[in-house]
Amino acid sequence: MKVIEGGVTAPVGFRAAGVAAGIKPSGRDVAVVLSDADATAAAVFTQSLVKAAPVVYSQGVMNNGGPVRAIVINSGNANACTGAAGERHAAQMAEAAAKGCGVLASEVLVASTGVIGVPLPIERVLDGIAAACHALEPGVQSAGHAVEAIMTTDTVPKQIAVQVEVDGTPVTIGGMAKGSGMIHPNMATMLGVVTTDARLPRGTLQTLLRETVDVTFNMISVDGDTSTNDTVAVLANGMAGGPELTAQHPGFETFRAAFRYVLEFLAKEIARDGEGATKFIEVSVRQARTAADARALVKTVLTSSLVKTAFFGEDANWGRILAAMGRAGAAFDVARVSIAFASAAGLLELMRDGEPVPFDEEEAKRVLRPRDIQVSITLQDGTAEATGWGCDLSYEYVRINGDYRT
Amino acid sequence: MKVIEGGVTAPVGFRAAGVAAGIKPSGRDVAVVLSDADATAAAVFTQSLVKAAPVVYSQGVMNNGGPVRAIVINSGNANACTGAAGERHAAQMAEAAAKGCGVLASEVLVASTGVIGVPLPIERVLDGIAAACHALEPGVQSAGHAVEAIMTTDTVPKQIAVQVEVDGTPVTIGGMAKGSGMIHPNMATMLGVVTTDARLPRGTLQTLLRETVDVTFNMISVDGDTSTNDTVAVLANGMAGGPELTAQHPGFETFRAAFRYVLEFLAKEIARDGEGATKFIEVSVRQARTAADARALVKTVLTSSLVKTAFFGEDANWGRILAAMGRAGAAFDVARVSIAFASAAGLLELMRDGEPVPFDEEEAKRVLRPRDIQVSITLQDGTAEATGWGCDLSYEYVRINGDYRT
Repeated sequence: MKVIEGGVTAPVGFRAAGVAAGIKPSGRDVAVVLSDADATAAAVFTQSLVKAAPVVYSQGVMNNGGPVRAIVINSGNANACTGAAGERHAAQMAEAAAKGCGVLASEVLVASTGVIGVPLPIERVLDGIAAACHALEPGVQSAGHAVEAIMTTDTVPKQIAVQVEVDGTPVTIGGMAKGSGMIHPNMATMLGVVTTDARLPRGTLQTLLRETVDVTFNMISVDGDTSTNDTVAVLANGMAGGPELTAQHPGFETFRAAFRYVLEFLAKEIARDGEGATKFIEVSVRQARTAADARALVKTVLTSSLVKTAFFGEDANWGRILAAMGRAGAAFDVARVSIAFASAAGLLELMRDGEPVPFDEEEAKRVLRPRDIQVSITLQDGTAEATGWGCDLSYEYVRINGDYRT
Repeated sequence: MKVIEGGVTAPVGFRAAGVAAGIKPSGRDVAVVLSDADATAAAVFTQSLVKAAPVVYSQGVMNNGGPVRAIVINSGNANACTGAAGERHAAQMAEAAAKGCGVLASEVLVASTGVIGVPLPIERVLDGIAAACHALEPGVQSAGHAVEAIMTTDTVPKQIAVQVEVDGTPVTIGGMAKGSGMIHPNMATMLGVVTTDARLPRGTLQTLLRETVDVTFNMISVDGDTSTNDTVAVLANGMAGGPELTAQHPGFETFRAAFRYVLEFLAKEIARDGEGATKFIEVSVRQARTAADARALVKTVLTSSLVKTAFFGEDANWGRILAAMGRAGAAFDVARVSIAFASAAGLLELMRDGEPVPFDEEEAKRVLRPRDIQVSITLQDGTAEATGWGCDLSYEYVRINGDYRT
């Protein structure tokens, strides 16, 4: 597998655009991604009971079971908690994109991200969609415009493309994502769009997406708040000309590994770019009784405000990690727990078999200084494991969210 | 019922002391509360899998089922995650208090609060306990010393005393509590000590404590982190000379109301004094399908970092409240939800029957300016309700917890 330049337009037969429609105070805010041929689609959505209008609309499209041609996305306004008007607006976005792309409205997925509870400035959005459809192009630049157009508090665009060979045919997977706050995906994630020119049956694609999201996007957290708009969609248009990749195909594992690489890369980029983050934190739990226990422990540690502020302060306050584990609802034996921190600056052992390990405060400060920190937790309780990614909790997070709307 | 001066020494036959033993950098840090007669005891402890050594010790004392005479508490060190040495230290604390008070070690409850994972400076603690036992006194001043000695990041001492008449006999309830961070009680709470000169059967007292804790201490959250040391103990020594208060006694409801008043007062004081708090937030959910749904919704809203930072910024970002409700795991119909804010400055309606209510930003700022804010959520889904208390998330919370240990 090799990583190549670009994003969603890297696979054969995908075009994209990102334009400025005036929904955000400045910058691009409407993106369209179009497949030149019918694409098999899979998607996962927020499990929140409060679903944004575009989520409800896109779930309807997916339930139809037909091919998907395009995805239209706006940033700057989530079209969530907007009542009946919001539902009309989501449908109008699909219709505008369908008209602009020359496809059917029932072949268009819709996503929105931004402030909640404010009506969409629909005229500006529709004008933006028309302009974006007009600007659709293949190539690296258009992917860059599209990923820029889905950013809100993100400080960096998040995209990637990789290539693998399947039966002698080069197959490409491209992806883009956004997300920085209200990040605590539950069975889904923030906005993510993945494209590929591989050909896969719809059921295989949906299973692959669901399984991969569970170990990538669903294992990140910035602030413990699940979004009303979480959506990841993947379009597979088969235009690479390769064989159909069923789960039984010998090339499927190669594709699966590349697909996971793309999703894990995007998920980690979201955690790394968490609102106000000064640290990127990877938590691994090993030798757990069950995978569910391991996952619960990883997520509880990653979301603990006390753990997060300690990392912000570069304070080796490992007792907070054990305290968070204690309330995770997972089974483990405290007397067998070991905890260590690692970074590019070295390794720091904190607890071994349930007993504190004395450590030097200066050495601890040194290990915690780099941006990337690994937390390793070993339970000696079984063979299950899980890894997740998050960030610290800083003054900047409070500043960003203390007055988000104004 | 009348509120009177003082705290745990207000009821007949209770003495207390608080001394400085050098566990904290400065100030009192060892407290002892003694009942002059055998007291019926009830206690609830943290449900965390990671229990501090004093919690395990005190659970053993409660399991013995005998009367309790004294409680010994230190602040500045939680004696949690301290391995086998921590267990020995907890027992030594009970023995030292028993010796100093002239009671049995099996009649002494132990509690600790402070940093996790650091061995207790046991010599200083034992010297402090001896000094505290020597200083035991009734009266308002000694209660003040004791409550001061259990504070960590608390900015104000939290104590109260109330008096009710039962069958013509004045009965007094006193209480003190501490807690400011790592506050998200689960079936128990932070440290709280309640004393009364009423006489109650042990089973009645334990049931009353459990039920009351569920609607008071268990409904507050500062940061979503459940402590390893949560403990609330109540001692009833019967020295007021009144009748035995079984649940069937005509005076029981009067006592129950006063008892709840004391616990709710202390719980709200903890939320109000949350680390770095600039706002005290009360969330009420009404017309919910079940009490469990109502409680889950209250707690999810209270613990959402995005909701908390919005209140810090005095930003009427009500969409975050609905977003938090969506991930609470509780059943409700979004189309029937109404949300309003209230404060001493007025009332602000934000959502009515699932539709956003337009509001004036200036008016919103005005309503959100006072320290105390009420959030009222109506579901039109049933008759259950719940109320809880929390605080905002400020720069100061990050500062306090970014470098707690140093």
